[in-house]
Amino acid sequence: MLHFHDNKVQEEIVDMKGAEGVTIRWLLADAQGATNFFMRRFDVSSGGRTPMHRHDYEHEVYVLSGRGRVWNAHESRWEELSQGDVVFVPPGEEHSFEASEDSSIVFLCIIPAGPASQKNR
Amino acid sequence: MLHFHDNKVQEEIVDMKGAEGVTIRWLLADAQGATNFFMRRFDVSSGGRTPMHRHDYEHEVYVLSGRGRVWNAHESRWEELSQGDVVFVPPGEEHSFEASEDSSIVFLCIIPAGPASQKNR
Repeated sequence: MLHFHDNKVQEEIVDMKGAEGVTIRWLLADAQGATNFFMRRFDVSSGGRTPMHRHDYEHEVYVLSGRGRVWNAHESRWEELSQGDVVFVPPGEEHSFEASEDSSIVFLCIIPAGPASQKNR
Repeated sequence: MLHFHDNKVQEEIVDMKGAEGVTIRWLLADAQGATNFFMRRFDVSSGGRTPMHRHDYEHEVYVLSGRGRVWNAHESRWEELSQGDVVFVPPGEEHSFEASEDSSIVFLCIIPAGPASQKNR
């Protein structure tokens, strides 16, 4: 069994084109022995965002704290996010996560292991 | 995209032998379109526990709130849990999650999709 606090994990700046004020912590991935799916923590500072993008794997998201919004491509609208919100982004669907202008947002995002997620590192 | 608050999901009592004061919410599973891994929320009331048990699939756990402890079979000891703690239980390793005597504990637990997780429902 592996057990640690998420703050012990090195925070990395997300330098993907279009990302602003976003950091990632790889909490559980191949280095920790995970083989099927990887758990990451994202922190987006107030006014920041992940780029509007799509890829061929899904996201399972849980909002830990703060406030922001997510782009619902299917409904062509932004939806407000706060603690306890769950988001499922199916493979191939365009999406972006934004923090509020006056609040950061922190969320977990779980993705499948494998080549797709390796590209994302 | 699917988006909802976790409190909207029906809470079910975990009636597994040895479980005490445990409820589960299946946040993302086959019914929500997830195909690779499933996200569940567990609430364990103060003094409650999940049974000491093992199975052939892993757990990826994130503690959302409260306090408790987890059995580390590899080290033969209990380890204290609180908000922000991450736990990886590899396949086949014995484990149990307990709430404190004076606090409940709430955590996410992600498991692979498929026959193993179906048995668990």
